[in-house]
Amino acid sequence: MLPTFLNAYFDSFESYIQQQEFIKNPEGLEIPIAYTVQSGGKRIRPLFVLLIADSSEFGYAKALDAALTVELFHNFTLIHDDFMDQSTLRRGQATVFKKWNRNTAILAGDALLVMAYQQLRRYRPKMRVKMYDLLNSVAKTVCDGQYLDIEFESRLEINSNQYLDMITKKTACLFGCSFQFGALVSEDLKNKGHEIFELGLLLGKIFQIQDDYLDIYGDTQNFGKVIGGDIRQRKKTILFTQAMKLGTESQKNELLSLYGTNHQLNEEILVEKVMELFHVTKADTATKALIETDLETFDTQINKIGFSKSQKQKLTELLLWLSKREN
Amino acid sequence: MLPTFLNAYFDSFESYIQQQEFIKNPEGLEIPIAYTVQSGGKRIRPLFVLLIADSSEFGYAKALDAALTVELFHNFTLIHDDFMDQSTLRRGQATVFKKWNRNTAILAGDALLVMAYQQLRRYRPKMRVKMYDLLNSVAKTVCDGQYLDIEFESRLEINSNQYLDMITKKTACLFGCSFQFGALVSEDLKNKGHEIFELGLLLGKIFQIQDDYLDIYGDTQNFGKVIGGDIRQRKKTILFTQAMKLGTESQKNELLSLYGTNHQLNEEILVEKVMELFHVTKADTATKALIETDLETFDTQINKIGFSKSQKQKLTELLLWLSKREN
Repeated sequence: MLPTFLNAYFDSFESYIQQQEFIKNPEGLEIPIAYTVQSGGKRIRPLFVLLIADSSEFGYAKALDAALTVELFHNFTLIHDDFMDQSTLRRGQATVFKKWNRNTAILAGDALLVMAYQQLRRYRPKMRVKMYDLLNSVAKTVCDGQYLDIEFESRLEINSNQYLDMITKKTACLFGCSFQFGALVSEDLKNKGHEIFELGLLLGKIFQIQDDYLDIYGDTQNFGKVIGGDIRQRKKTILFTQAMKLGTESQKNELLSLYGTNHQLNEEILVEKVMELFHVTKADTATKALIETDLETFDTQINKIGFSKSQKQKLTELLLWLSKREN
Repeated sequence: MLPTFLNAYFDSFESYIQQQEFIKNPEGLEIPIAYTVQSGGKRIRPLFVLLIADSSEFGYAKALDAALTVELFHNFTLIHDDFMDQSTLRRGQATVFKKWNRNTAILAGDALLVMAYQQLRRYRPKMRVKMYDLLNSVAKTVCDGQYLDIEFESRLEINSNQYLDMITKKTACLFGCSFQFGALVSEDLKNKGHEIFELGLLLGKIFQIQDDYLDIYGDTQNFGKVIGGDIRQRKKTILFTQAMKLGTESQKNELLSLYGTNHQLNEEILVEKVMELFHVTKADTATKALIETDLETFDTQINKIGFSKSQKQKLTELLLWLSKREN
């Protein structure tokens, strides 16, 4: 659940999406694209564009195209990633490669990446060129991050720094882009582009680390969520890398053996044993501490950057929500 | 073989490629990218950027980045298309998905598309934004063209107009972009962007139709080329669509049956029978006539657009070479 003060942005954004021609009357490749873009999702990234753009003076209406750009870009990565991971379900519906086929998934993804760029077409040239440049640099970084993520699958020994580098590239970078797009459009913060980008990057990092944490320690009441999905998939999350950093030799060996494929443990027992290791190595509290530190840095940064009063208030609310996040 | 007057451009372009950091010291995804970009190829598209930019006053040096952009974009389409077609060989070497794997092919293609955009980073903002906008529109069209091409594989009844629409989108459009990039950089022809784009588009169309024609009627002396590769693959080329337009009902039925899979004809006999049909339906002469007409239009357009004397001379040489092209 997103914090309630984002609801107004969410509604504006959803209604803006519905007005797009490629959604109203999709043709050819736009059909799998419209299918994916309309399949829901929390719209986190575009909401952050709108939030940052929503300075008291100008409002956020002119940031809707930039918000759509980051959402289209995000959906491009989903279509290609789902095919690469051979995931057949996303947001409760068949993924593009499953519902259509391999070639449609590749081409729809390619077209969507281009459409993300195209969505910036209505900004005046001086601003547009800055946005294109930023999107270029972020897009390349996201590809590099996804490449690292895939590479990590076939390696057991990933340390926390490598993991944090990967999530920064794959995930956090687009949050940075969302923040900076918002700042560019609002024009209030145009000389603070770098700091705003870094703030978004930090938020993206907190989000991903929290996701890893909540996968195990989150509120399981919601949606009948299963505990430890990441462990079942042997995903090397922040908890895994922290345990490998903090554990004794024998604890580390046990964890490596549990993440290997040379055992036939029942999944429930696997989760239980790994959770026990995360506890005794203090990977759990170390992760929690990491989140706390990042939240404090986020708070400090909000106060350092010259946000308007209304923006500052919203960002503080966001921080509060983040600190209590339970899926 | 390309016309000899393009040699100087070719050499400059090759040496420019070798200077690129991602070619000299490739890392991660840049490794399959450098492998593909360096695998040779005629560099037709970038040479056209340089040719058009090479007006007497400014020279073509500042068009090298734009030339690299179209070549990188072209290589992005090759990496994804080879995977979609499951082609294992390209320019005599293993394709990316064959040498590496599926995920590397998808991600290297994605990254290369972004790098094509990034290569424009050194143009001043006013020009850069025009180039980004043009590349956006062309990139989307190329995706649509590739989608049509794939869709045509599963349909027998493709008419000439549908075929021409597909090759215009999939192939000719990037030639148009190459011409217009050259014009933008040279600044000599900045008010003739549309006409220059159309001229490149026409050249791309001639190139593709000639490729179809030469696949059957070309000089087989070179490289031990096999006659009728397209027929063996049941590709619906311009000759096929012309035969379906011009043939009698029984000729059309015979052609459809030969392109179907319900027969066990030896490949040589298949090629012979289809070639006979292309001859009796006059698909061969109709295709030749189509090329002649397009070459005449190209000539008329060269004279209409206000090219510099030196550019006009080079384009006329290009036309002469095109009219005699034998692979």
